[in-house]
Amino acid sequence: MTLVTPIQLAYEPSVETAEPAWSREEFEARLRSMESRYHIHHEFHLLMNDGKLDRAAIRGWVANRFYYQVAIPVKDAAVLSNCPHREIRRHWVQRIIDHDGTTGEEGGIEAWLQLGEAVGLPRAELLSHQHVLPGVRFAVDAYINFARRSSWQEAACSSLTEMFAPTIHQRRLDRWPEFYPWIEPEGYIYFRKRLSEARRDVVHGLQITLDTFTTRAEQNHAVGILQFKLDVLWTMLDAMWMAYVENKPPYHNV
Amino acid sequence: MTLVTPIQLAYEPSVETAEPAWSREEFEARLRSMESRYHIHHEFHLLMNDGKLDRAAIRGWVANRFYYQVAIPVKDAAVLSNCPHREIRRHWVQRIIDHDGTTGEEGGIEAWLQLGEAVGLPRAELLSHQHVLPGVRFAVDAYINFARRSSWQEAACSSLTEMFAPTIHQRRLDRWPEFYPWIEPEGYIYFRKRLSEARRDVVHGLQITLDTFTTRAEQNHAVGILQFKLDVLWTMLDAMWMAYVENKPPYHNV
Repeated sequence: MTLVTPIQLAYEPSVETAEPAWSREEFEARLRSMESRYHIHHEFHLLMNDGKLDRAAIRGWVANRFYYQVAIPVKDAAVLSNCPHREIRRHWVQRIIDHDGTTGEEGGIEAWLQLGEAVGLPRAELLSHQHVLPGVRFAVDAYINFARRSSWQEAACSSLTEMFAPTIHQRRLDRWPEFYPWIEPEGYIYFRKRLSEARRDVVHGLQITLDTFTTRAEQNHAVGILQFKLDVLWTMLDAMWMAYVENKPPYHNV
Repeated sequence: MTLVTPIQLAYEPSVETAEPAWSREEFEARLRSMESRYHIHHEFHLLMNDGKLDRAAIRGWVANRFYYQVAIPVKDAAVLSNCPHREIRRHWVQRIIDHDGTTGEEGGIEAWLQLGEAVGLPRAELLSHQHVLPGVRFAVDAYINFARRSSWQEAACSSLTEMFAPTIHQRRLDRWPEFYPWIEPEGYIYFRKRLSEARRDVVHGLQITLDTFTTRAEQNHAVGILQFKLDVLWTMLDAMWMAYVENKPPYHNV
């Protein structure tokens, strides 16, 4: 494991290497190969997609994941705030609109609130973030802070877990209605909506990444950034595993 | 649980309340009562202080906790950077010096490196942060970012877990030599050093907190800040529990 992970301390933007740069195709393949660490493989997610979680755990996941949903447009605003190029901002601002919505097209946050209602979580309960576990909050905040403190190209690279997202959404659409018949059908709007949006966003994020990181040291740095983002998603599920599978939420024993 | 927790999203600096302010003594007692959630009560810490962790787990704790140690002076520099009062800075800068050291008095980070060597971790291994778990990194970074984005008084309040630190250090000094005879005696310098420093820092941090947060809404806000800091410490041990007790570090199954 010699990934250059952009942690806040010990930050190393590019470690010199004598190795030649990957071609554009090799670099993209290297990034795509990191799907093996996507949170679709986390044990919490495996249980969830095999229909093995109880209602409390499903609700816990929906409520905790909502903190990530509301973070996305804030993160994307941080990306815009670091980007001096009008053309990039014109394109990137669509991500904010996708989540926050506009009149008549209420967007991803509203769709997630509908998912909440479909699993029995009143929207006031979701909006209060009362169920958000500290470990989830710290991981999501790390993603926001990364976007605040990095270049817009590095932040674009960190969004590339969207390469792996259509599969995870499709699998939920395929399997949840059978496993969790108690979830109301309106709950699935978000996953369906993201199938096409994620595919479109990937094209743009990938283009920026492949154009920006061209030496091998820079490409290694990009791999480290994507690893950081995979860590964010995996760590969120670790906290949910502790709370809803091990039944050890913070302070459970005091 | 109606604590006003200063999470990055859904930040509520002071929720109005009709309740009267606590007296200075009641407020201090309320803050001190939060010791019941200090990480000394975490199951990982209970195992550690009962001599029940193996060498790998002790080393894991030392290596992960080192990320917190090196974060402290960075956090304190953020506090100084938000403080316009020379008198406060003159006092607070001592915390940076305590950790970073000066010629002849090498400070807390050096003492922790000696602890690392005493448990069999070469200093280069500690300094590389190669053993730091993502969940630990995100929790520690949350503490740094809280200090960056809050007022210096709020950051001072967040340091008040030091009220509970002398007990935890003393207990290690009392019990580890018996339980872990393989740890070299130079390892204990850090804990001994912090016994007096923590007591001195608490006086200052507590004075700032009791002087600043005077209405009940502000006092509730201070309680929320201390809760946030307790969450940081607890969540660090959750990540170590997953990795070293459950043997489920990130990506263990892929």
